[in-house]
Amino acid sequence: MSDILFDKIALIGIGLIGSSLARVIREKKLAKTIAVSSRSSETLERAHTIGLGDSYTTSAAEAVRDADLVIVSVPVGASGKVARDIAGNLKPGAIVTDVGSTKKSVVEQMLPEMPKGVHLIPGHPIAGTEHSGPDAGFAHLFEGRWCILTPVAGTDDEALKELISFWEACGSMVDRMDPDHHDLVLAIVSHLPQLIAYNIVGTADDLETVTKSQVIKYSASGFRDFTRLAASDPTMWRDVCLNNKDAILEMLARFSEDLSSMQRAIRWGDGDKLFDLFSRTRQIRKSIIEAGQDVDVPDFGRQLAYTEGHEEE
Amino acid sequence: MSDILFDKIALIGIGLIGSSLARVIREKKLAKTIAVSSRSSETLERAHTIGLGDSYTTSAAEAVRDADLVIVSVPVGASGKVARDIAGNLKPGAIVTDVGSTKKSVVEQMLPEMPKGVHLIPGHPIAGTEHSGPDAGFAHLFEGRWCILTPVAGTDDEALKELISFWEACGSMVDRMDPDHHDLVLAIVSHLPQLIAYNIVGTADDLETVTKSQVIKYSASGFRDFTRLAASDPTMWRDVCLNNKDAILEMLARFSEDLSSMQRAIRWGDGDKLFDLFSRTRQIRKSIIEAGQDVDVPDFGRQLAYTEGHEEE
Repeated sequence: MSDILFDKIALIGIGLIGSSLARVIREKKLAKTIAVSSRSSETLERAHTIGLGDSYTTSAAEAVRDADLVIVSVPVGASGKVARDIAGNLKPGAIVTDVGSTKKSVVEQMLPEMPKGVHLIPGHPIAGTEHSGPDAGFAHLFEGRWCILTPVAGTDDEALKELISFWEACGSMVDRMDPDHHDLVLAIVSHLPQLIAYNIVGTADDLETVTKSQVIKYSASGFRDFTRLAASDPTMWRDVCLNNKDAILEMLARFSEDLSSMQRAIRWGDGDKLFDLFSRTRQIRKSIIEAGQDVDVPDFGRQLAYTEGHEEE
Repeated sequence: MSDILFDKIALIGIGLIGSSLARVIREKKLAKTIAVSSRSSETLERAHTIGLGDSYTTSAAEAVRDADLVIVSVPVGASGKVARDIAGNLKPGAIVTDVGSTKKSVVEQMLPEMPKGVHLIPGHPIAGTEHSGPDAGFAHLFEGRWCILTPVAGTDDEALKELISFWEACGSMVDRMDPDHHDLVLAIVSHLPQLIAYNIVGTADDLETVTKSQVIKYSASGFRDFTRLAASDPTMWRDVCLNNKDAILEMLARFSEDLSSMQRAIRWGDGDKLFDLFSRTRQIRKSIIEAGQDVDVPDFGRQLAYTEGHEEE
């Protein structure tokens, strides 16, 4: 793929997602020019050193000038501010999109700020790792992953098509969804797992009877799986919680209800119930692997990483 | 390492752990003879086909005859029965150990059955994957992992030393612990994560508003991490719940308490509290990686597995 889709793309925010976009845009030649913006001058300097773009500025307003596509990759709580900052400089006909993990709140924050003739099409690539910052990105992050677009009523068809082409060129499959439904789906597949991971790591950290060094030593027995998610960016996740409250509280309530029921089965020694519960969940992993959304090797392929490491020694 | 440590080792149970032991014993030449036993003739036949041992029998009693080391790798609920089955045929001076995930209950089930002169030293290698059965094992499963031994009062020093040498020859580091404390430590690092994983997958499976296909499609956003643990052997985990009830209920209660507190912070929009909670958990992952108990690559090295897959295409 090497079709130039846009003359100029502005990346507002250059963390894990923004810097992965920069890399794939460069690699697949999806734009003539990449403008990089970060409100942190330290992050910006790092992006410059790595050479992620063609121009660098701490001013989002400056970055979006003449841009055909603007991609906002900031914690969702900052979406409104970015929209206000860039509104005056947006080129007529420009497409503005984002990569935030909640969509209803992003629409509410950004849509009122957009000038007439600019196409706001919120989006969410279902991709990431536990690492953050401009060094954490890589060009194939979006490959084989879904990207959900949540166009609002009256969205221009042509603009939507162009954005879909962009994500497909990044290697993604694209889905369309209502913002509310997006937030509900993500509450269960992403926000709840994340909160559970943070919570269990916190619970372990607080124990008086088991030392932290024991938790670390024996973490290969299951616990370590949760620490990966719990190493994610705290600002991003604080904002997700504050901006998808209702759906998250609904999923937390269901989870707690189910956990109480499991707890009761353990207390009363109901082995049959436990066995049934533990049996029904295998199929889902199989389906996820069949759908190409996880690797078909034990332990997420950790063994390969170990082997790789050994070979390098 | 190629010192023959035992003339004959009997493996009672030849699933993930038993078959990994068979492979490492063969590879490192830790025994002259390996006797393989499984109560399932289907599993036994499979073990025979792969060539995991030197003799094969569905009778644990037959397998342990003349064995210097007997390793019981069965769901912990079956430990008592195995002990009763083998007791009459154990060679004087033989070491009997196990690999079960709970230790107090194993001691209670097995110790009363052991004849005088036989050394029961319960153990637990902190290693595994989500796969089960004789095909799932591999020789380096125990490499760099901890193995916890929980010798009871009066354990023979020489026998203990021999068992420690055995696990070290398998690549493990060996720790000693009181059975009660083992069960408490494992409740937080292993049993709670496992139950949480089963529970969240169950909760997602039950939703009316989000389809199963959506859960699968977008699982890369966090959910898929939990499905690995939730694909583990249901019989093994039922037995763990029934045999480590008190410690598990204690950890579940703490986890639920913490979750309620997080839920309240979300409901009341307490961003500072959420940020603090989400920040303190990063350090633990860093420590786990530094301790060599997880890989230092994003996404557990999934990317390597993908790359590896691509190269093979």
